Amino acid sequence: MEPIIIRYIEKPELKNPVLVEGLPGVGNVGKIAAEYLKDNLDAKLMVEIFSKYLPPQVLMKGDGTMYLVRNQLWYYKNDESEHDLIILVGDYQGMSSEGQYELSYKVLEIVKEFGVNLIFTLGGYGTGQLADKPRVFGAATNMELVEEMKKYDVYFSETEPSGGIVGAAGLLLGLGKELFRMEGVCLMGETSGYFTDPRSAYYVLEKVRKYFNLSINMEELEFQSNEIGEITNQLKEEENKVEKKDDLGYIG
Amino acid sequence: MEPIIIRYIEKPELKNPVLVEGLPGVGNVGKIAAEYLKDNLDAKLMVEIFSKYLPPQVLMKGDGTMYLVRNQLWYYKNDESEHDLIILVGDYQGMSSEGQYELSYKVLEIVKEFGVNLIFTLGGYGTGQLADKPRVFGAATNMELVEEMKKYDVYFSETEPSGGIVGAAGLLLGLGKELFRMEGVCLMGETSGYFTDPRSAYYVLEKVRKYFNLSINMEELEFQSNEIGEITNQLKEEENKVEKKDDLGYIG
Amino acid sequence: MEPIIIRYIEKPELKNPVLVEGLPGVGNVGKIAAEYLKDNLDAKLMVEIFSKYLPPQVLMKGDGTMYLVRNQLWYYKNDESEHDLIILVGDYQGMSSEGQYELSYKVLEIVKEFGVNLIFTLGGYGTGQLADKPRVFGAATNMELVEEMKKYDVYFSETEPSGGIVGAAGLLLGLGKELFRMEGVCLMGETSGYFTDPRSAYYVLEKVRKYFNLSINMEELEFQSNEIGEITNQLKEEENKVEKKDDLGYIG
Amino acid sequence: MEPIIIRYIEKPELKNPVLVEGLPGVGNVGKIAAEYLKDNLDAKLMVEIFSKYLPPQVLMKGDGTMYLVRNQLWYYKNDESEHDLIILVGDYQGMSSEGQYELSYKVLEIVKEFGVNLIFTLGGYGTGQLADKPRVFGAATNMELVEEMKKYDVYFSETEPSGGIVGAAGLLLGLGKELFRMEGVCLMGETSGYFTDPRSAYYVLEKVRKYFNLSINMEELEFQSNEIGEITNQLKEEENKVEKKDDLGYIG
Repeated sequence: MEPIIIRYIEKPELKNPVLVEGLPGVGNVGKIAAEYLKDNLDAKLMVEIFSKYLPPQVLMKGDGTMYLVRNQLWYYKNDESEHDLIILVGDYQGMSSEGQYELSYKVLEIVKEFGVNLIFTLGGYGTGQLADKPRVFGAATNMELVEEMKKYDVYFSETEPSGGIVGAAGLLLGLGKELFRMEGVCLMGETSGYFTDPRSAYYVLEKVRKYFNLSINMEELEFQSNEIGEITNQLKEEENKVEKKDDLGYIG
Repeated sequence: MEPIIIRYIEKPELKNPVLVEGLPGVGNVGKIAAEYLKDNLDAKLMVEIFSKYLPPQVLMKGDGTMYLVRNQLWYYKNDESEHDLIILVGDYQGMSSEGQYELSYKVLEIVKEFGVNLIFTLGGYGTGQLADKPRVFGAATNMELVEEMKKYDVYFSETEPSGGIVGAAGLLLGLGKELFRMEGVCLMGETSGYFTDPRSAYYVLEKVRKYFNLSINMEELEFQSNEIGEITNQLKEEENKVEKKDDLGYIG
Repeated sequence: MEPIIIRYIEKPELKNPVLVEGLPGVGNVGKIAAEYLKDNLDAKLMVEIFSKYLPPQVLMKGDGTMYLVRNQLWYYKNDESEHDLIILVGDYQGMSSEGQYELSYKVLEIVKEFGVNLIFTLGGYGTGQLADKPRVFGAATNMELVEEMKKYDVYFSETEPSGGIVGAAGLLLGLGKELFRMEGVCLMGETSGYFTDPRSAYYVLEKVRKYFNLSINMEELEFQSNEIGEITNQLKEEENKVEKKDDLGYIG
Repeated sequence: MEPIIIRYIEKPELKNPVLVEGLPGVGNVGKIAAEYLKDNLDAKLMVEIFSKYLPPQVLMKGDGTMYLVRNQLWYYKNDESEHDLIILVGDYQGMSSEGQYELSYKVLEIVKEFGVNLIFTLGGYGTGQLADKPRVFGAATNMELVEEMKKYDVYFSETEPSGGIVGAAGLLLGLGKELFRMEGVCLMGETSGYFTDPRSAYYVLEKVRKYFNLSINMEELEFQSNEIGEITNQLKEEENKVEKKDDLGYIG
C-alpha cells in the first residue's frame, strides 16, 4: 500500500492560507484548540489522510459504527482577514519518528499546493504544576514573528522549552522552514500535563483568534476553561492546607 | 525479498463471497472460531501468505517436522446462502503496526479480486471478568449492518470497546471501507482475557453460522464451551465464598 | 545504501553443496560449532555480507585494529562425501525481525547459485537445566530427514521446542523450503542457556561430522567440552548436597 | 520525503581532506571536541543534512527562534599540513541502527566526492570511574595507523573497548574501510560517562591538533578541562575520606 494515502474531498481556491495544526499531544491542548476552531468556524473538510504510520486501529462513533483513524485538513474562508485557514486535526500523530517526518512532509506538500506560506502549530507545554493562569509560550522560525507574537502576550523564554519541540508541532515548522520556504509559530499553552486541558487550549486559541481576527464564539470553550480553573483552585487550596499543616507541625 | 509473498494454491470462482477473519488476539477467540469454521466446513486452501512482517520463526508440527509461520485464505462454497466464504486464518498477526497495515491491505487486494464486498472479522473483547454467558459485541461500517446484526442479538454499545479495535479485526474493516468500498462487521466475544476461550468463540461463531445459514456441526466447540462454562462456574462460586466469608468477617 | 551488501571473494565450483549455518544464539552453540568446523576444515572465505540490519558497530581484533560486523560464507571441498560445504558464520544475527527475513532470504539466494538444496542449521536449545550429557534435538523440513537423522541419535520430540525455532536457524529452513525448494534439518544442542556452551556445540558438531563423513579433528572442542562437563558435575554435586541437607533438615 | 536530504552550501576545492567526526555520545566527548575544533578554526559550513532518521524535533536557539535538528559538514583549509579538514557535527545521531547505517553511508558518499581517504572519529570511552588524567584510547583500520598513533601517546588495548565501538564513530570507519577504501582512527577519551566531559574532549582534541599541526587556541577548552579536573579531585578526595573512615571503622 502507499505509506500515506491522500483523499481530496474538495480543492478550494484559498486566499493566502495559513496552516493551523492541532494534533494530540501534552494535555491535548493543540487538539482541543484546533478542533474547537474547526467546529466553531464551520470549516469544510478538504483532505483525508490515512497512513500505515498511524496506529492499526478503528475508533467507535458511539452508534455502533466505527471509522479508521486518520488526519484531516479542513478549510475556512476568512473574510475578516487577509488569511484563509487550513486546519490540520487528527486522531493520532505518527507512531514512529520516521512516520512523523513522512506525515509532516506530506502535509506540507499538500498545503504548499494551496499557497500556504505561514504555519501556526498549537500544543501544550507540560510544567508538572497547576498554573493560576496558563501562559502561552512561543517559538518561531524568525525574529520578526517573535516580535510580532510578543504583541499578543505570547511568552518567549531563553531557556524553555528546554528539550525543544517534539512531534508535528515542531516538525511542520522545522521542515516547513528548511524545505518549503514557510515561516511559522508554535504556540504552547502552559498545562500541568496530568489531564486533558481545555483551559490551556482556551488561552492558546485566544491568541489565534485575535491574530487572525476570527469570528469564533469562544463561550463554550471558556465555560470548559472556567470549570478547569475552579478545579485547579480547589486543588491548589488543598495543597496549601496540607503545606500549612506541615508548617504548623514543625512549629508545634 | 518481497515484503509479502503470495502463493495461490487455487483460484476458485466464488459467488458473492464474504471474508471471515480470525487471527490470534485476545483469548484467541477469533482464531478459534475461524479455524473451527474452516475445519468443520472442510474448506479448501486457496492462498498462502508469507511475510517479513510476521515473526522470524518456524513452528513444530509434532512429528519432528516444522513449517514457516504464515497466514492463509481458505474458501467454502455455501449452497445454502447467497454468500460463499473466504476464511482468513494464521499463526500470527503482523509484528509492527506498519506490517499490520501492509498485511491487511494485501489481503483486501486479494479478496477484492474474488469479488468480496462484505467482511466479518472475529475477535475477543477482554473485560477482565468471568461472564455467565458471554455477550457478543459488534461494530459495523454502516448503520444498516448495525441494525441487521441487532436481530442476531449482537450487542452494540455506545461506549465499548472504548479503545476502538486494534489489529487486523479493525484494520480490515477500516481499510476495506475507506479504500476498497467494502462494508463489514466486527464480532467480539466477551472474554476474561486470561485464557484461551473456546466458549466465547462458540458464541461468536453461532452468530456467523446463523447469519450465513451455514451447516456447521457445532458439537465439538459446544463441548469445549461447556467445559469452560463449568470451570467458570467453579471459579465464580469460589469467588462468592471468599466474598461471603469477608462479609461475615465484617459482621462477626 | 543497499540494505544488504554482498562481496564475493571467490566463486568456487561446488559439488552438491550443503549450507551449514551457525550464528550467535542460545549458549552460542551454533556459532561455536560452525566456527570450529570452518577453522578445523581450513575452509576458504567466499562471500562477505554487510548490512544495515546488523548492529551499527565495529569490533576490536586485539591488535588495535577493528572490523565492521558482518556475516560470512566459507566453503570446503569434501572429498569423502557427496556434499561440499558452505558454512555461514557471523558476528550477529539481524537486529529486527524484518532484517532477519531479509538476511536469511539473501543468503538463500546466494547459496542457491552454488547449487545448495540441503541445509543444516545449528543452534542451542535452552532448558534452564544442567544436563549430564546434552541431547541433540532435531527439526526437519520433511519426514525422510526426520527418519534419517534419528539414525544419528538426533532426538525428535512431539512437544519440543514448544515455541518453535526463532531466528536464522528456523528461517533459513522455513524460507528455504517454501521459496527455494530446499530441504533441511535444524540440530539443537541441549544447553542450560546460562553460559557459552562448547560442550553442547561438541555434541551438535559430532552429528554433522558423522553425517557428512568429515575429517575434523575434534580434540580441541572435546577438551573444552570436557571442561564444561567437569564444571557441570561440580555444580550438580553442590546442588545435590544442598538438596540432601534440606532433606535431612526435614527428617531431623 | 527523501530519507536523507542533503543541502550543499558550498563545494570547496579541498587538499587531501580528512574527515573529523564528533557527534553526540558518551560524555559528549566527541561532540565537544569537534565543535570546539570547528569554532576555533573558524571553519566554513559546506553541507547540511536533514533526515527522518534523526529525532522529529526542533531545538530552541534562546532568542525565541527554533531550528530543525540536523548534521553538518564544515571545512577548514589547513595551510600548515598536507590535509584540509571536513568536520562532521550534529544535534543527534540516527535514532535506529538502520538510520545510523544510512546516515554514515551518506556522509561517506559526500566526503568521498571531496577526496577524503582518511577519517578521524572522536568519542568518549565510559569507564564508570573518575580518572586523574584521562587516557586517549585508539582503534584504527590498519596496523600502520596503530603504530603512527602510538607516537602520539594514543593508548591501544588488547581488550578495550571490549564491546567494540557503536554508532557513527565506529560505523564511519567500518563502512569507510569496507566500501569506500578509506582508512582511519577512532580516538576515545577516557571519561566517567556520568557527565558532559570537556576535559576528556581536551585530551582527545590535543591528539588531533598535534597530528594535523593545527593552529587551534586550546585555552578555553583547557580552562573548562581544568574546572572538571578540580571537581574530579574534590570528588576523589571525598571518596578517599569515606574509604578511610570505613577502614578506621573496621580497626576501631
